[in-house]
Amino acid sequence: MQNRYGLAEEVVLARLEEIRRKDTPPSTIFSSMCAQPHPIAVRAHSMFLPTNLGDPGLFQGTATLEAEVISWFLDLFQCQDAGGCITSGGTESNIQALSIATRQHLLSKKHMRPNVIVPASAHFSFEKAARLLGFELRVAREETHRMDPEHVSELIDKQTCCIVTVAGSTEYGMVDPVPDLAALAKEHEIFLHVDAAFGGLVLPFLKEAPRFDFSIDGVSSICVDPHKMGMSTIPSGVLLFREQNFFDILSVDTPYLSKKTSFHLTGTRPGAPVASTYAVLHHLGFDGMQEIVQQCMENTRYFIEEMEAIGIMRAVTPDVNVATFHPHNIPEPWVVSHTRGGDVRMVITPHITCELIDSYVTDVKKLNEK
Amino acid sequence: MQNRYGLAEEVVLARLEEIRRKDTPPSTIFSSMCAQPHPIAVRAHSMFLPTNLGDPGLFQGTATLEAEVISWFLDLFQCQDAGGCITSGGTESNIQALSIATRQHLLSKKHMRPNVIVPASAHFSFEKAARLLGFELRVAREETHRMDPEHVSELIDKQTCCIVTVAGSTEYGMVDPVPDLAALAKEHEIFLHVDAAFGGLVLPFLKEAPRFDFSIDGVSSICVDPHKMGMSTIPSGVLLFREQNFFDILSVDTPYLSKKTSFHLTGTRPGAPVASTYAVLHHLGFDGMQEIVQQCMENTRYFIEEMEAIGIMRAVTPDVNVATFHPHNIPEPWVVSHTRGGDVRMVITPHITCELIDSYVTDVKKLNEK
Repeated sequence: MQNRYGLAEEVVLARLEEIRRKDTPPSTIFSSMCAQPHPIAVRAHSMFLPTNLGDPGLFQGTATLEAEVISWFLDLFQCQDAGGCITSGGTESNIQALSIATRQHLLSKKHMRPNVIVPASAHFSFEKAARLLGFELRVAREETHRMDPEHVSELIDKQTCCIVTVAGSTEYGMVDPVPDLAALAKEHEIFLHVDAAFGGLVLPFLKEAPRFDFSIDGVSSICVDPHKMGMSTIPSGVLLFREQNFFDILSVDTPYLSKKTSFHLTGTRPGAPVASTYAVLHHLGFDGMQEIVQQCMENTRYFIEEMEAIGIMRAVTPDVNVATFHPHNIPEPWVVSHTRGGDVRMVITPHITCELIDSYVTDVKKLNEK
Repeated sequence: MQNRYGLAEEVVLARLEEIRRKDTPPSTIFSSMCAQPHPIAVRAHSMFLPTNLGDPGLFQGTATLEAEVISWFLDLFQCQDAGGCITSGGTESNIQALSIATRQHLLSKKHMRPNVIVPASAHFSFEKAARLLGFELRVAREETHRMDPEHVSELIDKQTCCIVTVAGSTEYGMVDPVPDLAALAKEHEIFLHVDAAFGGLVLPFLKEAPRFDFSIDGVSSICVDPHKMGMSTIPSGVLLFREQNFFDILSVDTPYLSKKTSFHLTGTRPGAPVASTYAVLHHLGFDGMQEIVQQCMENTRYFIEEMEAIGIMRAVTPDVNVATFHPHNIPEPWVVSHTRGGDVRMVITPHITCELIDSYVTDVKKLNEK
């Protein structure tokens, strides 16, 4: 046995501190969609650390928080009588949405392999879902990094069970033309899922933002991640369905638990991030969120202008706070990422201030002058 | 908007404290497989709260913790050169194991619907996996709540891709005859998955416990949940594979992240519970874990004896620290649960002391005398 005997608490914690220092400091990370958690998120998380929503009868207080968080999002996304649940994040939400869409299809058209249409920029979680669920993934072309409804229309056939659209894409921060796609979905009586993992907590706070929510007829489900722009703790995802009973399709019996069925992808489910999400939303309110999000968008525009002023052009003008630039050398110690097309990509979360942006731009300029 | 304006931090935290008090106090919960987190688990969790293993290049320190935790378990389960990863818990681990087993089958025998054999007592996560992955679930009979190898043998056919066995069942705390089942799996060249979500951190610390690990030829994968008997924080699961490259089957490309592929069911993955698991295992060491687990087993035996002394008989003599009794009235305020067969079920986690057991038995006796 590698450690037959235990180590003193101080020794273990000192070791952990040392290891934690090897993680990249948040102030140099420009590539992450997960915002730094808000201080109130951290406090709420600690208060609910041992809670398990997989057995909600034991945690009836925590369970009311889940209901309140869902209700907050249904209000934000304009469909108070829809249903929803907390998940571990966008990937689980997307898998669950597709699980319902494909199962509905199989229940009505047995033995026919369903297909799902996604935009070229869709997150890789849809490929995971396709492998798990065995559906065919049909990739629609994009115009300026937004899904092209005309191509979607060509791809639809009798085995199409779902159109996936993205509101705030991971790579370029773009919003698909959801109203046009929802109209198509409605016409063909198919499911429409909106992946708003990032944009769901950005777009509602912007003036003249593209529409994506339940106010659009034909939108069946929406997911959003509070651990991204909601400044909550990881893992915090939300999945919402216009028809509450969609979840019944996924229910299995749960003997020996305090409730009778479960439709979740996971069993044990942490209550701490739910409390954390609740705390941020109620502490900031709509106005507080709006202020933070509008600042992020302003910083995104500032970033683009400053980069273009030194000759590095934007790849696209984004709908949400993701800035992408033509390829350039990346100075130390900054951490950015690259899109499949080779562009440099940054996510302007709340901790990316104008000072940080100035430092980056200065460093890029220096590096280019060498 | 329901809350246009935010609330002061103290107001939100006071509200959360009030809500938290509506959760059942842990000292009355006899039904949960999740042990109360160890104090060092809580401290380690806080230190790593913002870390995301979904993007391990940004969290290279935290990523080494995942590797160390996996290595600790491979050592414990006697196969140092196997592979593994951290998951959100047993359900995700079981889905991933079955995902690999069925995918392997489909790659070799295209278009044939695979089947998976599970014991009657298997956790409901296998039903979730069957729905997701579309395999046929074949339920094997049990003898004294343990999977019957003879019936398994009858159920195997050319489309069988996996046998699932349980080491420490949720309902009765029993261990299936893993060596016999592994021999069958080997003979038919099929995958054998051991669900040791609960028992995986009990059995290695008991003398003369039934065997279940990689020392048995034919065992392909094992899952274990540190947030159960490992006293870690939620969500902590571990999935181990004898063949490291099994994970490749599930890999998808991950553009824009700090690593190139992902085989996980989730995207964003919390690093905090990994640090938490690391802290408990290294603080207690093998000896410390052994002491706690042996005490739980002693308390389980004590519970059974005390209940039988007042005329309420055990349903079965368990292999791990789960006590089940013939149906009886449950006194307030105790929270127990019931098996599908109607027996009363308790999980004797470390916080269930002899004092708590005495209180319960006294209350049951009083209630019966009324």
